[in-house]
Amino acid sequence: MVEQDKKEETKLKDNGKDGIDADVLFTEFKEHSVADFFKKNRQMLGLYGKQRTLTTIVHELVTNSLDACEEAGILPDIEVKISEIGDEYYEIGVIDNGPGIPEEKIGSALGKLLAGTKFHRLVQTRGQQGIGVSGIILFSQITTGKPTKVISGTNNGKTVSLEISIDSKTNSPKITDKHYLEKKFRGTAIRSKFKEIQYKKGQSSVDEYLRRTAISNPHATIKFEDPFQEITEYKRSVKVMPKIPTQVKPHPRGVTVDEMVSLARYTQARKVSSYLMQTFDRFGQTAVDNVEKLIHFDINKDPKKLTWEEAEEIVHAIKETKFIAPNTDNLVPIGEEFIEKSLKSIVNPEFCFVYTRKPSVYKGGYAFQVEVGLAYGGNAGRLISIEAPEKPKNAKPKKDKNGKIIIEEEEKPREIRASEVIRYANKAPLLFDAGGCAITKTVDSIDWRRYGIQNFDTSPSTVFVNLISVHIPYTSAGKSAIADEEEILTETKLALQDVARRLGTYIIQMRREADKKEKRKVFAKYAPEVVKALVHTTGADGKMLQKNLDKMVLEKLKMDDEAEARGEKIQDDYSEEKPASDDE
Amino acid sequence: MVEQDKKEETKLKDNGKDGIDADVLFTEFKEHSVADFFKKNRQMLGLYGKQRTLTTIVHELVTNSLDACEEAGILPDIEVKISEIGDEYYEIGVIDNGPGIPEEKIGSALGKLLAGTKFHRLVQTRGQQGIGVSGIILFSQITTGKPTKVISGTNNGKTVSLEISIDSKTNSPKITDKHYLEKKFRGTAIRSKFKEIQYKKGQSSVDEYLRRTAISNPHATIKFEDPFQEITEYKRSVKVMPKIPTQVKPHPRGVTVDEMVSLARYTQARKVSSYLMQTFDRFGQTAVDNVEKLIHFDINKDPKKLTWEEAEEIVHAIKETKFIAPNTDNLVPIGEEFIEKSLKSIVNPEFCFVYTRKPSVYKGGYAFQVEVGLAYGGNAGRLISIEAPEKPKNAKPKKDKNGKIIIEEEEKPREIRASEVIRYANKAPLLFDAGGCAITKTVDSIDWRRYGIQNFDTSPSTVFVNLISVHIPYTSAGKSAIADEEEILTETKLALQDVARRLGTYIIQMRREADKKEKRKVFAKYAPEVVKALVHTTGADGKMLQKNLDKMVLEKLKMDDEAEARGEKIQDDYSEEKPASDDE
Repeated sequence: MVEQDKKEETKLKDNGKDGIDADVLFTEFKEHSVADFFKKNRQMLGLYGKQRTLTTIVHELVTNSLDACEEAGILPDIEVKISEIGDEYYEIGVIDNGPGIPEEKIGSALGKLLAGTKFHRLVQTRGQQGIGVSGIILFSQITTGKPTKVISGTNNGKTVSLEISIDSKTNSPKITDKHYLEKKFRGTAIRSKFKEIQYKKGQSSVDEYLRRTAISNPHATIKFEDPFQEITEYKRSVKVMPKIPTQVKPHPRGVTVDEMVSLARYTQARKVSSYLMQTFDRFGQTAVDNVEKLIHFDINKDPKKLTWEEAEEIVHAIKETKFIAPNTDNLVPIGEEFIEKSLKSIVNPEFCFVYTRKPSVYKGGYAFQVEVGLAYGGNAGRLISIEAPEKPKNAKPKKDKNGKIIIEEEEKPREIRASEVIRYANKAPLLFDAGGCAITKTVDSIDWRRYGIQNFDTSPSTVFVNLISVHIPYTSAGKSAIADEEEILTETKLALQDVARRLGTYIIQMRREADKKEKRKVFAKYAPEVVKALVHTTGADGKMLQKNLDKMVLEKLKMDDEAEARGEKIQDDYSEEKPASDDE
Repeated sequence: MVEQDKKEETKLKDNGKDGIDADVLFTEFKEHSVADFFKKNRQMLGLYGKQRTLTTIVHELVTNSLDACEEAGILPDIEVKISEIGDEYYEIGVIDNGPGIPEEKIGSALGKLLAGTKFHRLVQTRGQQGIGVSGIILFSQITTGKPTKVISGTNNGKTVSLEISIDSKTNSPKITDKHYLEKKFRGTAIRSKFKEIQYKKGQSSVDEYLRRTAISNPHATIKFEDPFQEITEYKRSVKVMPKIPTQVKPHPRGVTVDEMVSLARYTQARKVSSYLMQTFDRFGQTAVDNVEKLIHFDINKDPKKLTWEEAEEIVHAIKETKFIAPNTDNLVPIGEEFIEKSLKSIVNPEFCFVYTRKPSVYKGGYAFQVEVGLAYGGNAGRLISIEAPEKPKNAKPKKDKNGKIIIEEEEKPREIRASEVIRYANKAPLLFDAGGCAITKTVDSIDWRRYGIQNFDTSPSTVFVNLISVHIPYTSAGKSAIADEEEILTETKLALQDVARRLGTYIIQMRREADKKEKRKVFAKYAPEVVKALVHTTGADGKMLQKNLDKMVLEKLKMDDEAEARGEKIQDDYSEEKPASDDE
């Protein structure tokens, strides 16, 4: 390297004294706060597009409430209210029954970007960066100039009310109008005003966001009042608290050299060997022994003195060492029973199949789990309206028998149900950038005709997919789509094929029932004719004949059923799809 | 609002004491630095994908050098060197002859994110946020654990050498190995190591990035040594320094309420009226008088006491007030002469047309200017290789006269030239996300056949478009594509139509020349026959006849030319395209 330095030095030239002096140029040198940065780059926080911004605001506030309740082990009761107070000017309020925020932490929790409890932990939660709600408060203030109202009550019994804004120059909270309320309250209430947003219904709306949130959180009650004072309430269909997700130790397979060095700085361990065992998941004595054989320094040295090169050796040695797959205890799926309850209560389909796969691992180090639901018929899918076919322009008016022109009613646009795919990451709905998402791609890769659905797009189906992981591989910082990790694609496909197969069987069952009904109808229609003819030719008793004939028909249909039960004569309309792995 | 507060209070419930206490949950509450944030979200800095990351690194370093030289009024000499030192492991060095960095500012300029001279100014520069190079240094250290070497010399004559890294926990620089070199040097040399990147040739490569940078910076000399020690040098084709872009006052039309309030905090003015005139572009006494009529408070009050509501009134009043369009003096285009020189020297086309439009304004408040160049023939366009058609599998082998099998050489893939669109924002090349960019869309909207180019995609053309503005409307924080602002689309289209029209005329001219040559060839071929026949029938002198015939032919061709010059008989192969506005 010294040689490299010398080589570079020979390239340095005395470039003379022309041009403006560096000292002059650097007089305007300034430092800027992260709040100022996001003020200039709000699109990085998902705050762009009037409807998308509104949905993102509600997402951040509701996510915060759900996470808080979950961590504290409280069944969430959340109220969301949007009021229109001017042109593209709204007030948004969210009240929860969570643990509240300790009085002295309110400022930094809500009025400072990049502050929070979740940044450095590996735990399956919705929020992670410590930006969400403080970003929202910043956005409120730069569009309206107004502070955000916060009321917080914790178990100590005091209810504090205050107004908060962010000094963007210093990224620090400004608290005003602080006082205590007499009313007892445990939870957090946040109320804030916004401009440059717009309330609209539709696929990317707050309504849709909350409907999907309710589906993935059957233990939560969510009440929503829209700007027209219409109230929608999703009552909890499950009264059991989900397991609290626990923090995970990182699995050795996913660790970078930088992390190996950084984590060593904070350990309590006195030896590298114990640092490894204490810090990483599945790192036992056997693994330590194996690593020791592959490195060129003392594994009992002080981890605080671990150099980059030594850490690099360990990371290389890890690649040559066998480890048990990551611990998956800390993944908390919603669970089949609860997803089914939720879909039945909110989507209200004719039929519903759910499947929670076993946990799996991607990129060798991250545990994940896929849950899918397939709701069909009834209110499943979403309503779309189809325009009536246009009439030919110069068509002659129809006339009645008397030559009077019949005034025909305009054909109204028809409403039909179309399929919808509702995507989730750690139970939080993903509403945007569906095209680039691994979930959408997998759903599209299924050949639905094999499962009796001739045209999936216009079928009354709701496909539910929830991916849970301590490390969701998003495609971008916008966190709106999941990247194409092969293991995730495979697991999702297998899960979808399972529910699709069950739906297929159900659809065939329905067709058979319909066939049987038809047969019975035909018998019923012609039996009297047959009886009449027989009476005429044989002179036998009509009533008796009719009775015997009915009996024969019933027995014939019963025999069909039995044959079916024995597996004979079964003609499936679909052929079994090969497993996903063969398809690839 | 007090009523609203009361309404909310009635909703607050005493939610009991179940769940974990807030104080317990908040024990892990921590603050994080912006450096930690970008460490976790490197894709926000364009640092994703192995090739894209490498190109982004070079982009940040070169941009920094060009901006520094430009601000100091120095003709840039920049050397870029990439050496491979392992598998996906490289060292990248950039040396410039710029003003250098004052010794005491090196730490914060390079070792601290969100620090710089450009963040709050409206000035046409390449960089803006104060993240670029420090983000690169951070990336180097998290992939290799190594600090970055920096040598800086300013006009004070001292040359300082040091190593810098960033403490990501505090977003502050760590400087080591600082010493002074004996060698005199004015400029900055930065040398850094990176993993997880890959050097490849192609459309998104460093080579292409530097070629395009050289085209848009004809006053710069750029030397590049690739990992195979191959050196490419782009020598400056222009020895004049471009005008130094000056800072712009914001135009009233583009100002938000938040900016109106924030800027009032920093003004030296004592009255709102003088604050408006001093702070904003084109804000004269007439405008102040008009605003005064529309607002409900004293326009001579202290601007530091301006409330949000008052600022809102001013912003509304501005909408009702006429202003002269923004000052465009501060836009510094490359200029037609220089673009042409540059394209000729680097692209080396057969023909080249350039056009710098007059400055224009978008969204009412931002000045911008479009420059285009169209290089055609010669080395214009990019080489693409076309596979030879596959031979039928069971074709019989060819045999020669003696029945011996002829072993045919495999047909090699042909190389042809295809069109390329090179996009720039403030002279910096845009290499990624072409599909979503306003420039690409405009080029695609041109009907090139009207201009004599039958198939634009496979024509040997390089289309150059540079958009300059103090506020480039990027589609996202990635800064890789320009948004569809109507005024920008229109200006770009008009400019492209102009150069296309000129190219069209040229192509027709060429065809005519070819026709003429053909005619001459025909005459030349048949004249001797005609002479022979005449000699045979009339017995005249062959030589004289030949001479007279040649003269006649030349005169005939000359007459054609003259007729053409008078505008007769001109048959253009293209019809004049309607102006863009009619097309829309």
